[in-house]
Amino acid sequence: MDFELHPHLMKKDFVADLPLCRVLLQDVSHYPWLLLVPRRAGVARLIDLELSDQLQLLSELELAQQLIWNSFELNQLNVAALGNKIPQLHIHVIGRKEGDPAWPNTVWDHPAKTPYSSAQKESLIQLLQEGLLVPNAK
Amino acid sequence: MDFELHPHLMKKDFVADLPLCRVLLQDVSHYPWLLLVPRRAGVARLIDLELSDQLQLLSELELAQQLIWNSFELNQLNVAALGNKIPQLHIHVIGRKEGDPAWPNTVWDHPAKTPYSSAQKESLIQLLQEGLLVPNAK
Repeated sequence: MDFELHPHLMKKDFVADLPLCRVLLQDVSHYPWLLLVPRRAGVARLIDLELSDQLQLLSELELAQQLIWNSFELNQLNVAALGNKIPQLHIHVIGRKEGDPAWPNTVWDHPAKTPYSSAQKESLIQLLQEGLLVPNAK
Repeated sequence: MDFELHPHLMKKDFVADLPLCRVLLQDVSHYPWLLLVPRRAGVARLIDLELSDQLQLLSELELAQQLIWNSFELNQLNVAALGNKIPQLHIHVIGRKEGDPAWPNTVWDHPAKTPYSSAQKESLIQLLQEGLLVPNAK
């Protein structure tokens, strides 16, 4: 069985392919919000990943978190594997700031969902691609 | 600086000390819900942990997830580091079932918070301790 993105995840904006994960952008302008989707078929939970993939995921999550943390003025990072609605493993990495629409609650069920403008999204995806694919370039 | 539990976490029920994490029970009877708190001072985010601690955390999260998954009839596991309200790193491991009060939304902001009875809690903590501290015993 080959890896295929769940139809709901196919609607997200593509950012980059890391060695294990496809990185997607959640188009909600209130928070820098990435989704990391391990490119493995039939994986719904962290415990479904083999150990080698779990270790690679840890490394890719570290990269994504450091990038978000260092690129924006934030107070916290939320990292979560939920999957109640989309049964394909995807890990949320979300930058949170005091005063953002959902703060201090979680973002998932909050009604604020304003998308980025095209120009904002293009510039953000470029920043993310540079940080993820050439992380040591300054 | 020595490790100390945040006052809000001190109110939770103690389950076990693993090599890295203190395991606590969230007293909400609708979901099997553990908190894993790395016993390190001054740590608010996953990226604050040294690599060796991140690897140990991965192993302890696997143990906690497998235990919850194998002990209850569940549809999904939610694993999350949030920390918007309690600024000490703690990772939620929550068993979710279709039809639970918050399903398919997240549990954190859901109003259902019925605690366990004393007998339920005692028996659950015993089950969890046996699974975490002697995981291969059957």
